[in-house]
Amino acid sequence: MTDYRAAVQDMNFLLHDVFQVSQDWATMPELAEMMDADTARAILDEAAKLTETLIAPNARQADEQGISFKDGEVTTPDGYKEQFAQLAQGGWVGVTANPEFGGMGLPKTLSAQYEEMMCAADISFSLYSGLTAGAIMTLDLHASQELKETYLPRMAAGEWTGTMCLTEPHCGTDLGILRTKAEPQADGSFALTGTKIFITGGEHDLVDNIVHLVLAKLPDAPAGTKGISLFLVPKFLVNEDGSLGERNPVVAGSVEHKMGIHASATCVLNFDGAKGWLVGEPNRGLAAMFTMMNYERLGVGIQGLGAAARSYGTALEYALDRRQGRGAKATQEPQAEADPLIVHGDIRRMLLTMKAFVEGGRAFSTYVGQQLDRAKYAATEQDRADAEALVQLLTPVAKAFMTDTGLEATIAGQQILGGHGYVREWGQEQWVRDCRIAQIYEGTNGIQALDLLGRKVAGSRGELLKPLLREMTEFLQADAGQWSAEYQQLADAVKSLTEVTEAVLAQVPSDENIINSVAVEYLNLVGYVVYGYLWLRIARVAEAQDALGEFASSKVKTAKFYFAKLLPRIHSLRPSIEAGSKELFSHELNEF
Amino acid sequence: MTDYRAAVQDMNFLLHDVFQVSQDWATMPELAEMMDADTARAILDEAAKLTETLIAPNARQADEQGISFKDGEVTTPDGYKEQFAQLAQGGWVGVTANPEFGGMGLPKTLSAQYEEMMCAADISFSLYSGLTAGAIMTLDLHASQELKETYLPRMAAGEWTGTMCLTEPHCGTDLGILRTKAEPQADGSFALTGTKIFITGGEHDLVDNIVHLVLAKLPDAPAGTKGISLFLVPKFLVNEDGSLGERNPVVAGSVEHKMGIHASATCVLNFDGAKGWLVGEPNRGLAAMFTMMNYERLGVGIQGLGAAARSYGTALEYALDRRQGRGAKATQEPQAEADPLIVHGDIRRMLLTMKAFVEGGRAFSTYVGQQLDRAKYAATEQDRADAEALVQLLTPVAKAFMTDTGLEATIAGQQILGGHGYVREWGQEQWVRDCRIAQIYEGTNGIQALDLLGRKVAGSRGELLKPLLREMTEFLQADAGQWSAEYQQLADAVKSLTEVTEAVLAQVPSDENIINSVAVEYLNLVGYVVYGYLWLRIARVAEAQDALGEFASSKVKTAKFYFAKLLPRIHSLRPSIEAGSKELFSHELNEF
Repeated sequence: MTDYRAAVQDMNFLLHDVFQVSQDWATMPELAEMMDADTARAILDEAAKLTETLIAPNARQADEQGISFKDGEVTTPDGYKEQFAQLAQGGWVGVTANPEFGGMGLPKTLSAQYEEMMCAADISFSLYSGLTAGAIMTLDLHASQELKETYLPRMAAGEWTGTMCLTEPHCGTDLGILRTKAEPQADGSFALTGTKIFITGGEHDLVDNIVHLVLAKLPDAPAGTKGISLFLVPKFLVNEDGSLGERNPVVAGSVEHKMGIHASATCVLNFDGAKGWLVGEPNRGLAAMFTMMNYERLGVGIQGLGAAARSYGTALEYALDRRQGRGAKATQEPQAEADPLIVHGDIRRMLLTMKAFVEGGRAFSTYVGQQLDRAKYAATEQDRADAEALVQLLTPVAKAFMTDTGLEATIAGQQILGGHGYVREWGQEQWVRDCRIAQIYEGTNGIQALDLLGRKVAGSRGELLKPLLREMTEFLQADAGQWSAEYQQLADAVKSLTEVTEAVLAQVPSDENIINSVAVEYLNLVGYVVYGYLWLRIARVAEAQDALGEFASSKVKTAKFYFAKLLPRIHSLRPSIEAGSKELFSHELNEF
Repeated sequence: MTDYRAAVQDMNFLLHDVFQVSQDWATMPELAEMMDADTARAILDEAAKLTETLIAPNARQADEQGISFKDGEVTTPDGYKEQFAQLAQGGWVGVTANPEFGGMGLPKTLSAQYEEMMCAADISFSLYSGLTAGAIMTLDLHASQELKETYLPRMAAGEWTGTMCLTEPHCGTDLGILRTKAEPQADGSFALTGTKIFITGGEHDLVDNIVHLVLAKLPDAPAGTKGISLFLVPKFLVNEDGSLGERNPVVAGSVEHKMGIHASATCVLNFDGAKGWLVGEPNRGLAAMFTMMNYERLGVGIQGLGAAARSYGTALEYALDRRQGRGAKATQEPQAEADPLIVHGDIRRMLLTMKAFVEGGRAFSTYVGQQLDRAKYAATEQDRADAEALVQLLTPVAKAFMTDTGLEATIAGQQILGGHGYVREWGQEQWVRDCRIAQIYEGTNGIQALDLLGRKVAGSRGELLKPLLREMTEFLQADAGQWSAEYQQLADAVKSLTEVTEAVLAQVPSDENIINSVAVEYLNLVGYVVYGYLWLRIARVAEAQDALGEFASSKVKTAKFYFAKLLPRIHSLRPSIEAGSKELFSHELNEF
C-alpha cells in the first residue's frame, strides 16, 4: 500500500483561487471573525497530518481484521480506539458542530475537505465520527434546549457518538411503512419498541455512550411518511449530574457481513421498550431527519470522492514505477527492460479519467459546500434563499454522481494495477469495496435521481433548475480565450440539458412512469454538464496564474481531456432519456 | 441466497432456433455421428442438474470459508473435494477433451453453455476444471505423443488437474521479460528454476497430481517473446507404470488474499530445479500457449456472463417479491402496504439492462462458439478459414465486453437489492467480487482492446473486420418487418463503425499512440454493434415462433429495449474515439 497524501494544494487552490471562499466568509456575520484564508490553510494542514499519519496507515489492517461481535458487544479493530481518542482530543468530531456547544463550527467548504481526507484515509473509521456530526446537527436544529445541553457538548467533544436509525427489515427506501412504535410515558419520555437494521456504528467500543436518533410511530400517528416522529434514545441513560446511568434496552442483535467497510459496525438494533425523548414536533420526524440529509448526502458523495482520490494516488505511483511493455519510440528507455506503464495510452486514459473525476468532484463538493454555507450564513435573505435553491437541486447530484464516478475511478485504479489491483496488498480492491456502499446508503442513487428529477425539477416545474442554467450561461458570456471550442461544447450541453428537461416535463401529465424511467440518466446528464462547467472555471483560473507552474498546466490539460473524452458521454444519455418509459413498461411480469 | 436456475430454455433456443447448430454438426465429419439436437438437449439438462443441485448451493459457504494455506499445502473449502469427484465421475472435466484420450469432445457451442452454468454456480470452483480443460487442449495440440499418452487420459478423467504458469512478480502483461530458466538435462528433460505468481489452482487438495504448463527461457533463448518455451512440469513425477513417483521441487510459497474468488487457490509457485519436458518447439512457447487462448478467453468472457446470469436471477426474484413504494396508479395493489419493486421504472431499467446483457451475452458466446467449432470442424478449408477469421476478431471482444457488461450487470443486480445487495446474505456482492477478476486475468481488458484494434484490425489493415461488417450488412438486406427503425439504427451503427475504423487506421502511420489511446472505446463500440445485430437475429427468430408464447414476446421486447436504451451508448464512444490520442499525451509525467 502506498502512503496517502492529501491533496492540500488542490484544496487550497479551489477554496481560495477558484471559489474565493474567504470573500464569502468576510461578509458572513457568524464566520467573519473566526475564519480567514490563513486559518483555513492551517486547519487543512492539520487535517492532512492527522489523516495521513494517524488514520490512513491503519486502514488496510482494520479492513482485514474487521469488527467482531459477541453477546451484543462490538469490538473495533486494533488501533481504532486510540485513533478516535486522538480525533476527539483534536476537536475533529465536533468539526461542524455549533460552537455554543463546544464545536469548531467550520464552514462546509472547509469541512468538506476534511471529510474527503477522512474518507480517503479510511471510510470505515470516518463513519463513526461522520454519523455523529449528522446527529449533532439534527439535535442542534430540532431538539429541546434541555436535550441539547445534555447531549451536544459530549457528542461535539467526541465523548459520545451518534447514529441514525431509519431502516427496518421490511423497509429501507419506503420509510412510510416503518413499524417501530413509541409509547408515551407518564414522565414525558417514550418507550420505543421495534427492530432497526443497517445501523452504522449502532454498537461499538470507541466511547462510553451512543446516542441513537430513531424514527418511530406514535400510537395515533397517521399512516405513511406523515406519521413518523424522531426520538433520541441513548445507549445509557444520563443522570442529572451528567454521569451515565442505567443501560437502556437497545441492544445489538447481530452485525452484518458485508462486501466492504469491514471495520464499520453495521448493526441490527433491537429496541425493547427503550427510553427515548421526542426530537422536534410529533409526526414531523422525517422532515427533521431530512434537514440533515443535505449535509449527509454531500458527505456520502465525498466518500466516493475520497475513495477515488486514494485510489488515484496509488494508481499514479504504480504507473510511474511499474515497467511493462514499450511506449512510442520517442519515449522509450532502451536501457531498461521495459518502459513505465504511464507511457501507454490506455493507462493514461484511465489515470486521466480518475484525475478528472477526482479533481472535478473535489471542485463540485466545494461548490456545493459553498452553497450550503451561503444558505446558512449569507447576510441577506435573498442570498440565503438563492443558495438554498442550488443546494436543493445539487445535493442528490453530489451524492449520486460523486459515488458513481467514484466507483468508476476506483475500478480504473484497480485495473491499472492488473492482478496486483485484485489482491489486498496495494489496497486498490478495498477502495472499490468501500466505495460501493456509498452508491447504496443514505438513499440509493436511484432514489437520488428520483429526488432530482421528480421532487426538485418536475416538482418546481423546472424553476429550480433555472438558476444553475443561468449561472452557466452567464459564465459562457465571457471571453473564451483559448477555450472557444470547449465553451461551445458546454453551451451545446447546457442547451441539450434545457431541451431534455422541457421534453421530460412535457410528458409528466400523461405518463406516470416517465420520471422514474429516465431519472438516473438525467442525473448523470446534469452531473457531466456541471463538471464541464466546473472544469472550465478551474482551467480559466489556473491559466491566469503563471506562478502555479506545472499545477496550473495540469489543470488546463485535464480540462481539455474532460471535454475531449468524458463530456461526450452526454450524447448517449440524451437519446436514452428521449426514449422515455415505453420499452421499460412493455414487459408483463411473467415475461421477465 | 436464491436457488440457481440454469437458463436451459434460452440455451436450447439459441442453439437450435437461432444458430441452428445441429445443421452445422451434420456437415462436420468429427461431430456428425456423435452430436445431434436431442443429445445436446440431454447434455444441457444433465449440466443444469449438476450445477443447480451440486455446485451452486455451496458457492456462498465456499466463499466465506475460502481456501487455507499451511506449509505449502492448500486446503479447499468443505464440499469441494466431493463436488470435484462427482464432476470427474460424470466426465465433465474432460468435457472438451479429445475423445481419443477419454474426453467428451463436445463442440464449443455446447460446452459454452455448460461453462456458463458452472460460472453462474461458482466461479471459484469452475476454475479448477476450467484451467485443466485449457491445459488439456494445449497438450493435445502441441505435446509429444508420449506426453499426451501419459497425461491426457488422467487429466480428461479429472484425476489430475492442470495450470498455466505465465506471470512472474515483475511481469504479467509483458511476458517478453520473464526470467524463469529451463536448463536442458542429459535425459532430455529440463530443470526449471524461477518464481511464478497468480497461478490459479497452483496447489490444492482436490486431486493427487497437478500438471503445470510453464513458460520459461532456454539458456540460449533470444530476448523478448521470441525466446519463450513451454514446459510440462508435474507436481509428482509419473513412473513408467503410471503410478506417482517423486515430488517435483515445485512448491507453493504462499497464496494471495483477494477481492473475490476466495475459494480458488491463487498461488505463488517456486520452481527449484523442477523437472519438466518441452511442449512443442523451443522458443515457440508463447504461440503454443496462445492456441488455447482463444478458447480460454471466451471462457473468461463466459465468467462475466455467468456471474451476470446468477445475479439477474436473484435480482428478478427479489424485485418481484420485495415491496417498497408505489407504482403508477393502474398497477397499485392497495390492499398491500406497498407494491413490488418491479413496478418502478428505474428497477425495470436495471433489470432489463441485466437481461439484455445476459441474454445478448449468451447469444454472443454461442455465436463465437459456433465460429470456433466451424474453424475446427468445418468440412472445407475455406469455411474453416472464414470462421477462424471471425474467431480472431471476436475473441478479444468476447473476453472484454462480456466481462465489462458482466460487471455492470452484477453491480445493477446488487443495486436492485439496496443494502441487502451489499451484505453477504443474498450473494449479490459475491458475484460482483468474483466477476471483477475476469476483467483482469487472461490479459486485461485493455490488452484485449489492443489485440482487437492493434493486432487484428490495424494488423490486417481492416481486412479482418470486413466479414463481420458484411455479415451484418447482408442480414440488414432482408425485409425488416416491424423492425424498420431498429434496422436503420443498426445500419447507421455499422456505418459508424466502418467510418471510425477507417479514421483510426488513417492515423496509424503518423501517430504511434493512436491504437492504445482509443482501443477500449473501440472494442466497446464493436461490442454494442454486435449485440445489436444479435438481438435483432434473436427477435426475428422469436417473433416467428408463436408456440414460444411469453418467451418469444419477452425476446422481442428486450430487443426493443436494447435499441432504445443501450445501443445509443455508441453515440458517446464515437466522439471519444475521434478525439484521438492528443489529450492523453499532453501531460508531462510531472504534471500528473
